[in-house]
Amino acid sequence: MNKPQVQANDLIDVAGVRVAAVASHVRYANRLDLVLMELAPGSTSAGVFTQNAFCAAPVHVARAHLEQNQGAVRYLLINTGNANAGTGKVGIDDALACCDALAQEAGIARHEILPFSTGVIGEKLPVHKIAAGIPSAIKSLGNDWLSAAKGIMTTDTCPKARSLTLTIAGKPVVITGMSKGAGMIKPNMATMLSFVFTDAKIDQATLHSLLQGAVDQSFNRITVDGDTSTNDCCVLSATGQSGVELSNDNPQDLALFETELKALVQELAKDIIRDAEGANKFVTVDIKGGVTSKECLLVAYAISESPLVKTALSASDPNWGRILAAVGRAGIENLDVDKIDMYLGDVCIVTDGMLAPAYTEAQGQAQMQQEQILITVDLNRGDARETVWTSDLSEEYVRINASYRS
Amino acid sequence: MNKPQVQANDLIDVAGVRVAAVASHVRYANRLDLVLMELAPGSTSAGVFTQNAFCAAPVHVARAHLEQNQGAVRYLLINTGNANAGTGKVGIDDALACCDALAQEAGIARHEILPFSTGVIGEKLPVHKIAAGIPSAIKSLGNDWLSAAKGIMTTDTCPKARSLTLTIAGKPVVITGMSKGAGMIKPNMATMLSFVFTDAKIDQATLHSLLQGAVDQSFNRITVDGDTSTNDCCVLSATGQSGVELSNDNPQDLALFETELKALVQELAKDIIRDAEGANKFVTVDIKGGVTSKECLLVAYAISESPLVKTALSASDPNWGRILAAVGRAGIENLDVDKIDMYLGDVCIVTDGMLAPAYTEAQGQAQMQQEQILITVDLNRGDARETVWTSDLSEEYVRINASYRS
Repeated sequence: MNKPQVQANDLIDVAGVRVAAVASHVRYANRLDLVLMELAPGSTSAGVFTQNAFCAAPVHVARAHLEQNQGAVRYLLINTGNANAGTGKVGIDDALACCDALAQEAGIARHEILPFSTGVIGEKLPVHKIAAGIPSAIKSLGNDWLSAAKGIMTTDTCPKARSLTLTIAGKPVVITGMSKGAGMIKPNMATMLSFVFTDAKIDQATLHSLLQGAVDQSFNRITVDGDTSTNDCCVLSATGQSGVELSNDNPQDLALFETELKALVQELAKDIIRDAEGANKFVTVDIKGGVTSKECLLVAYAISESPLVKTALSASDPNWGRILAAVGRAGIENLDVDKIDMYLGDVCIVTDGMLAPAYTEAQGQAQMQQEQILITVDLNRGDARETVWTSDLSEEYVRINASYRS
Repeated sequence: MNKPQVQANDLIDVAGVRVAAVASHVRYANRLDLVLMELAPGSTSAGVFTQNAFCAAPVHVARAHLEQNQGAVRYLLINTGNANAGTGKVGIDDALACCDALAQEAGIARHEILPFSTGVIGEKLPVHKIAAGIPSAIKSLGNDWLSAAKGIMTTDTCPKARSLTLTIAGKPVVITGMSKGAGMIKPNMATMLSFVFTDAKIDQATLHSLLQGAVDQSFNRITVDGDTSTNDCCVLSATGQSGVELSNDNPQDLALFETELKALVQELAKDIIRDAEGANKFVTVDIKGGVTSKECLLVAYAISESPLVKTALSASDPNWGRILAAVGRAGIENLDVDKIDMYLGDVCIVTDGMLAPAYTEAQGQAQMQQEQILITVDLNRGDARETVWTSDLSEEYVRINASYRS
């Protein structure tokens, strides 16, 4: 599959933000595994977090700090190699100890820091290694966005970062963001790790609403394996240094920004699918004609997470019967299967619940051999529509996940 | 994994039942793919069927016939190689045409026959091949139970059949049954194909209640891949030829029979897991301390169907963090993660929501290297308990399902 390919000069600097990535040997030697992101005083931040009941210690701490500082965040501190999840009270203390080390070094309060961890679940966080890496991270702060995007990777095979500039009231406004994730991907009201920055000035309530809206249509619409991580987080920070203020007082400007933000975050989410573990296909599952969004999503996820549909996708086999079987078990009440239409790309395979008379296996085969596959199911019973992005299930996915810890 | 190993002389004849398996070339040449089972006049039958909204044509027909004949079934007609699913009205006509061919040959009414199909979804049933095979199937009727169990196989690697004799009122009563299935396994109020026979005399209402009870604790508690088939069916037939009558008038005898029936059907269900596609592990997921059975099942299936848990099982990796993450995303309201205990076999890994102090990786490793693995999660919030049986997810599963149609 065509992996996301980001170059250093694709990424636009955000005034008021400095980043750094260093090797602190959390799990592996000589690997960028500690990332620091600094926000200028006066910046605002909003975050959304995993809904997994076993959410990791840093998630608890980041959420509490965000409440305490009301969005006045100064640093994001991210380590890979260890998720600090399933570690109970000790894990909380460890996350706080990392914040303390940074707070002391930077001369700020602990609650101005949001900590993030990603990696293996259930192992104690090596606080001393992270603390030891902090001084050199501070010294390295600058605008090497690509290294930061590399520094948050785990099983990812490539960094994922995007930038855009839009013009508001004649002035340029920048949005630059990055994401990580390749497996254990079914974000739920949150995401894998993603950090997005803008130099617009936005109050925290507005920022949170912008973030939630963007995440709902991006990270909350992707699935690799249906497994929601314990560590999902997405943060949006606004430094205000462009001199452009966005608020509900200027609804048109805000709407323009919202559209661009959503587009950027959606691409960051799709980048995760493009780099999904072992994946060879980028699959869009488009369900329309539902009575509610909820039932469209039930069908979309039943298809997107069916091992049988995913193995057929991996083999480029237009085994549409498996897609129908997934629709049929999605749990939609009073589903009239005789009304259902199904398409692969623009090829109609099923019409009124049965094989379309004009369909040929060769047509289906041609669609399935593409790298980008569109599966459309029309339930023909309402006006709701939802799209989910997913990947195929290959032997390589099994190999990666059978060996991830070793 | 130790596959089920049944020999011809393990299977006990059921008076009033004759079976036959022939090759009718539905999909492959020289393969037993058409099975006929004959019940003596006076027999009763009950059936449970898939809850998949896209249920296959033969499921519609079998259900309608069972309603029409009130359980007075004379023949079960089963083909493999083609599921006759997703075939709409034409599929119904085809299933009826197969019944017609048998009815004419056997001199009985069409509705005294229950048809079953299993195999590839979405292709037209080759009625003429099945009709052509019926005369030789009738001629071959006898007691070759093992061939019948082989004749209903698709991706199964071995036949699955079980027999037992119990004594009621001093007389022997036989139960003999068979099942098929290895993938697309998450029966829902039904099963893959399974046919169970007894020579006890049991009225249809009692028979149905016995069957439903047995299936709920067996076929409805297994999952290979979470994919509910379009063709699941389980039939229980009673010929009455042992001279032993079972009814609510003799609750003790009925209870004895029920216990033995449940045990046999549970082993048939477990046989499907033992033969699960690509599987190397037989995994029992035991969830206790739930408030309701429903929440225990939510947790059990979240674990059993997690690709990350299943790949860790495949690799014999005691990656317990993935099990916790699955518990955390199972959707249990107000789950207090600090109360959760988790065991691998008799090794306590998690206590009060965090790593047990005495746990060592070597202990977990020793458990995971077994072929039979027991995962126990105690939610410690109620008295409900449910058990689900499942398998691991291997590269071989992906290989099998990426090539199944070709």
